Amino acid sequence: MDRLLQQIQFIKEIDKLKEISRRSYLLSENRPENSAEHSWHITLMAILLLEHANEDVNVFRVVKMLLIHDIVEIDAGDTFCYDEKANLSKADKELIAAERIFGLLPNDQKTEMIDLWKEFESQGTREAKFAAALDRLMPLIHNLNTGGRAWKENGVVKNQVLKRNEHIKNGSTVLWNYVLAELNNAVKSGVLKESLKKTN
Amino acid sequence: MDRLLQQIQFIKEIDKLKEISRRSYLLSENRPENSAEHSWHITLMAILLLEHANEDVNVFRVVKMLLIHDIVEIDAGDTFCYDEKANLSKADKELIAAERIFGLLPNDQKTEMIDLWKEFESQGTREAKFAAALDRLMPLIHNLNTGGRAWKENGVVKNQVLKRNEHIKNGSTVLWNYVLAELNNAVKSGVLKESLKKTN
Repeated sequence: MDRLLQQIQFIKEIDKLKEISRRSYLLSENRPENSAEHSWHITLMAILLLEHANEDVNVFRVVKMLLIHDIVEIDAGDTFCYDEKANLSKADKELIAAERIFGLLPNDQKTEMIDLWKEFESQGTREAKFAAALDRLMPLIHNLNTGGRAWKENGVVKNQVLKRNEHIKNGSTVLWNYVLAELNNAVKSGVLKESLKKTN
Repeated sequence: MDRLLQQIQFIKEIDKLKEISRRSYLLSENRPENSAEHSWHITLMAILLLEHANEDVNVFRVVKMLLIHDIVEIDAGDTFCYDEKANLSKADKELIAAERIFGLLPNDQKTEMIDLWKEFESQGTREAKFAAALDRLMPLIHNLNTGGRAWKENGVVKNQVLKRNEHIKNGSTVLWNYVLAELNNAVKSGVLKESLKKTN
């Protein structure tokens, strides 16, 4: 029973992820997305887009990684992916957060969850690479379909988008080729700026 | 490429689940929960609470079921579980919704998703029973930890809670015993009314 109570305590704690706001807007543009619903979305995407992974992956490991990959944000906050300075101090804060939050679970589950989270962060396995491809794909889809709203609000231009997202190709060249075509269209239609100097 | 575009179309469509509001409040009570973040929460719970299932279950099937179980609400809306009249007309509306929304996917994936959703709804398999236990457990945790807010707002009393949730025991007697103990405490502390006549 102690074990169940520890698990319930963790389940209650992670309710807070529903109040961690991201920069991307919902497709309706009614509000920014939160990290819990984002995690749901990309987990289901992993299952549906599995056939586009570069290598055979253990999809259940990918699923577990995506379900928990943002939980550290409860303490560490969401770090905007184009904020290079904030990303420098991100690792330390998130490690402390992982220890505290996953530490609510029974020891065996704590270890499994922290290992999965570290695997996702270090990008050393095929599962982590495919998971990261999906984590990057969804905000692109949100931006591409909301007139580039978060890009415009944060002064993000095409080269930054390419640099920050090109690791999608490590998980799926099919998805990366889709993104490249969509980004070219976005520049043509004015949804994404080519550079800071031009206004096209 | 056509296949990927169908998948992306579905992925965009289900963004709407993030705007389907449920009756339960977040533990912070800042706002009601939405169905997308709810789906994330109970999917992760399925993985963490697996050891409490009555029977051996294929956890990946449970995960898939939980990720998609509420998608029909995009068209059919969330039906409050204690609204008996609304629940009578729920099945027809949801079937039409399933056909339209999962119909955006390539045929093989449409079939798999509709079959999983029907399996969840008909409660005929051990996976569906465990999935349903988690789907019911989370709103109970929300109510028990927010002073019974959604129960009070909707005039729900103990017998209704017992009747509507007792199928938790079909998936997990451990979780059902936990719920029974918590409900008894809730009645004692005034969080849940014993009946419509009394005010304790």
